[in-house]
Amino acid sequence: MAAARPKLGGVLETALYVDDLKRSVEFYQRIFGFEPIEKDERLWALSVEGRHVLLVCQRGASANLPHTAHDATGQQHLCFAVDAAELDAWEKWLTENGVEIVERRTWPRAGCSLYFRDPDGHVLELATPGTWTIY
Amino acid sequence: MAAARPKLGGVLETALYVDDLKRSVEFYQRIFGFEPIEKDERLWALSVEGRHVLLVCQRGASANLPHTAHDATGQQHLCFAVDAAELDAWEKWLTENGVEIVERRTWPRAGCSLYFRDPDGHVLELATPGTWTIY
Repeated sequence: MAAARPKLGGVLETALYVDDLKRSVEFYQRIFGFEPIEKDERLWALSVEGRHVLLVCQRGASANLPHTAHDATGQQHLCFAVDAAELDAWEKWLTENGVEIVERRTWPRAGCSLYFRDPDGHVLELATPGTWTIY
Repeated sequence: MAAARPKLGGVLETALYVDDLKRSVEFYQRIFGFEPIEKDERLWALSVEGRHVLLVCQRGASANLPHTAHDATGQQHLCFAVDAAELDAWEKWLTENGVEIVERRTWPRAGCSLYFRDPDGHVLELATPGTWTIY
């Protein structure tokens, strides 16, 4: 009999590929308060509220790893959860910190999203509950 | 006085860019059991244990959105959390399902990681507690 699928906990790390590590880390620290927990010449690992790890990877620097080479170009997408009561404060915070809101969207389940870009043009989103069936 | 930084919940969505939506969704459903919660011609949204949303995005299909265009090429990295007691079962499960383990690594804090690739070559990792200071 085939084995059953083992259990999984959820997303632990997600990676963005950037042109300038220092610039990106400064942005994610200043705007979100994500603190570095490890760093080397390839990447900085930032703590997302102690729950997740955002890997900010220098483009090209992980492309020659022997078995686990990874690298990407382009403008990725990443979304963070926020309470509905915090969304207006986030809009104010982003604007005051020079981050332009490029779109504000309300979803059929009444969730609401703010969209903006990081220094590499990655599309970041803050979404409130009511965005997905599971959130 | 400057406003304080509002509160943030954690990572809600992360996106992988793929060449063949159907192939990728089949892989993530079969290997991880991630169920689709929404789909359109641009992307499928998969539920990661009801906690996160993995956006499997057709390469190029979101590149012309008016304000939130995103797209990426290359081989990204994504890591999921698993309990230490589940890691051997995952290794067996992956092997039985034709997924080659490309690296197994033990970390200084005693966490352990398995690395393998999805159909687009994205580097996936399963990591046990003891991988990071926060995990």
